Amino acid sequence: MADKKITMAHIDLQNDLPGIRGPMAFRPETAKPLNELAEILLRDDNNTLSRGERELIGAYVSSLNDCFFCQNVHGALAQHYFQCDMQLIDDIKNDYQSTSISEKLKALLTIAGSVQKGGRSVTIGQIEKAKDLGATDKEIHDTVLIAAAFCMFNRYVDGLATWAPTDRDIYVQRAKMRAEEGYSNLDLYK
Amino acid sequence: MADKKITMAHIDLQNDLPGIRGPMAFRPETAKPLNELAEILLRDDNNTLSRGERELIGAYVSSLNDCFFCQNVHGALAQHYFQCDMQLIDDIKNDYQSTSISEKLKALLTIAGSVQKGGRSVTIGQIEKAKDLGATDKEIHDTVLIAAAFCMFNRYVDGLATWAPTDRDIYVQRAKMRAEEGYSNLDLYK
Repeated sequence: MADKKITMAHIDLQNDLPGIRGPMAFRPETAKPLNELAEILLRDDNNTLSRGERELIGAYVSSLNDCFFCQNVHGALAQHYFQCDMQLIDDIKNDYQSTSISEKLKALLTIAGSVQKGGRSVTIGQIEKAKDLGATDKEIHDTVLIAAAFCMFNRYVDGLATWAPTDRDIYVQRAKMRAEEGYSNLDLYK
Repeated sequence: MADKKITMAHIDLQNDLPGIRGPMAFRPETAKPLNELAEILLRDDNNTLSRGERELIGAYVSSLNDCFFCQNVHGALAQHYFQCDMQLIDDIKNDYQSTSISEKLKALLTIAGSVQKGGRSVTIGQIEKAKDLGATDKEIHDTVLIAAAFCMFNRYVDGLATWAPTDRDIYVQRAKMRAEEGYSNLDLYK
């Protein structure tokens, strides 16, 4: 990617790949299950949450964790699937309650936001509200696990001080290709 | 396990398994990569961190996240591998600097503690100290990813309000069997 490297990673990753791709190429043994988890959680078609909704949950949690790389990769993917402009994604990250997304998705984002704080922050009231709005047990399960997984991905990316392109347009331009590639093609991380 | 169920999970997990085993049996598609990740990170023999050291990092992060199930499962496993008593594990969780563990392991626990707060909390000074004490890039990578992964596992367990045996001796009694079984035998989660 044509972008200046702002920081040096904490360890010698032996590559110049941005974001999570750097440590994934450094340690392909752990990249494999990490990518399989992302593939099943975010892309598997046997899911009543759309790919856009699932990417949005990941982008929202990444914004709460202040992870620039992840919130831009997954925000751009959500934008790609929703066929909306990035302003809506930013509005959702900043104040989803005031946006036009469904009340059910708002309830799931509330649960995801609690998971980001810590598992015990999720309340029975938040769960009941999501169920009242039609969320299934599997959808709630996946929302909790997506939010939890991004608490891992975000810490992996920033805990090793990986670099990320600062130009947000780069992420938007790449979203279509990323959507086609998916997460399970490990050649992408070489 | 012979223990009273204290809470109901937030969703109907369709089983009575404790802790992470409940949602893993509910959703085996995501359990597979989660267990593969744990197997490679915590048990793979191609690692200069011992199994005990890796389980200890997981137990320490789980204690910071106040996850009763995970800190007891992995604390008991660390105790099993170290062949120490549980008091040392508790002392490490409470104040590792004052314990007899190696200075290198203390430096890695410091990095893990920062990852628990958020990836950006890891400092160059913490990394340099670990390297000065002999930590390799791969050991630092794995420490960051173990800590990040437990931030996921802990949120998964508590975000769904799973139940856990309250008798800590149960975890100690089971540690030897868990150490032999490993994490990749999915039949355990049925």
